[in-house]
Amino acid sequence: MDTDDFSEPDFSDGFRSDFESLLSWRRDVRHFRKDPVPDDVLERLLELADRAPSVGNSQPWRIVRVDDPERRAGVIQIHEEANREASAAYGTSEKAEAYRKLKLAGLREAPVHLAVFVDPDPEQGHGLGRATMPETLAYSAVGMIQTLWLAARIEGVGLGWVSILDPVRIGCILDVNPSWSFIAYLCLGYPEKNYDTPELERKRWQARTPLSDRILKR
Amino acid sequence: MDTDDFSEPDFSDGFRSDFESLLSWRRDVRHFRKDPVPDDVLERLLELADRAPSVGNSQPWRIVRVDDPERRAGVIQIHEEANREASAAYGTSEKAEAYRKLKLAGLREAPVHLAVFVDPDPEQGHGLGRATMPETLAYSAVGMIQTLWLAARIEGVGLGWVSILDPVRIGCILDVNPSWSFIAYLCLGYPEKNYDTPELERKRWQARTPLSDRILKR
Repeated sequence: MDTDDFSEPDFSDGFRSDFESLLSWRRDVRHFRKDPVPDDVLERLLELADRAPSVGNSQPWRIVRVDDPERRAGVIQIHEEANREASAAYGTSEKAEAYRKLKLAGLREAPVHLAVFVDPDPEQGHGLGRATMPETLAYSAVGMIQTLWLAARIEGVGLGWVSILDPVRIGCILDVNPSWSFIAYLCLGYPEKNYDTPELERKRWQARTPLSDRILKR
Repeated sequence: MDTDDFSEPDFSDGFRSDFESLLSWRRDVRHFRKDPVPDDVLERLLELADRAPSVGNSQPWRIVRVDDPERRAGVIQIHEEANREASAAYGTSEKAEAYRKLKLAGLREAPVHLAVFVDPDPEQGHGLGRATMPETLAYSAVGMIQTLWLAARIEGVGLGWVSILDPVRIGCILDVNPSWSFIAYLCLGYPEKNYDTPELERKRWQARTPLSDRILKR
């Protein structure tokens, strides 16, 4: 069932320019309004994200929608513990006080919580492409998350990726298959405000640097 | 320098529909024409990809443009070795013959080769967000690659992710900082044909499956 190339889409200059805006306005959101994201919007976003590429076409991501208040409270608790430890590691350095002032997650306010795992040995894909680099399964899940991030922003929905968590304990709290690897905990909802610069840049934690520092030739 | 939310972009229905097309037509490409990708196009694509989110705003990706014919030949050799091993692992199974017929990389034809690494302990970002999950540095690089994949497709440029490689040997061939972790080897160029279904689906290796199989509620 090949579709031949004469039917491929041609993207307009207007689309190019809007796509560039999308990349600039896609931010990690930690300040959410509490009003819900309609189910049909969330389903559409997940359908779009699910079109991301995956190694061997394995689609190894497993997405857990976390609604139960007790499980959410458990996630908040392990985030707070991990954040206290991370904060302590800055000691009394110049960065320590700055760290403590940052808001690093919107877990209490965000109406939607999604936890993303990968199946480390999915039958789908028949093992193709991952023999020497099994981590490509996790990488496929991240491509799905980045697609979700962009798709959400188009609908005005913000996403925040919470990584200050103990991955093993998240699997226990959510009672998923113990063989699965935890990739990311995502908060989604409508942002309180929208910005085109990263929060960590606005709060003077870390600004972006020129791309040329990251390119080599060989 | 906060930009307030009243200036945020509003994405039109036309943009939404074109973005959906972009996700459908973004394919892993293994069949490239040999004509070059102009330098200004490649630079623009990398600038767009570089706007991807990163843990702690660390921008940990390091992008190596590989032009030297001897280094390219070395990469092709280690791909062929890894592919022979992967092929042998299917033994005489039903999938073995099918595997051998697949074209899994366009390394010989693609005009642009990029290798992506991450710095495992970048100063940028001051360690924020990665104490419990250091793998978020690699995940940031993958978000950059997925952004590049989409940006490239808008310009008609195809990208193929080659993962059938020994990651340690790639670092040696490219003579990069030995502390860096190898994430992906990317081929870019204009595709011979364009498709809206994955090559592995067209070649009956693995079709996509319904999203509902990958969603859980807790």
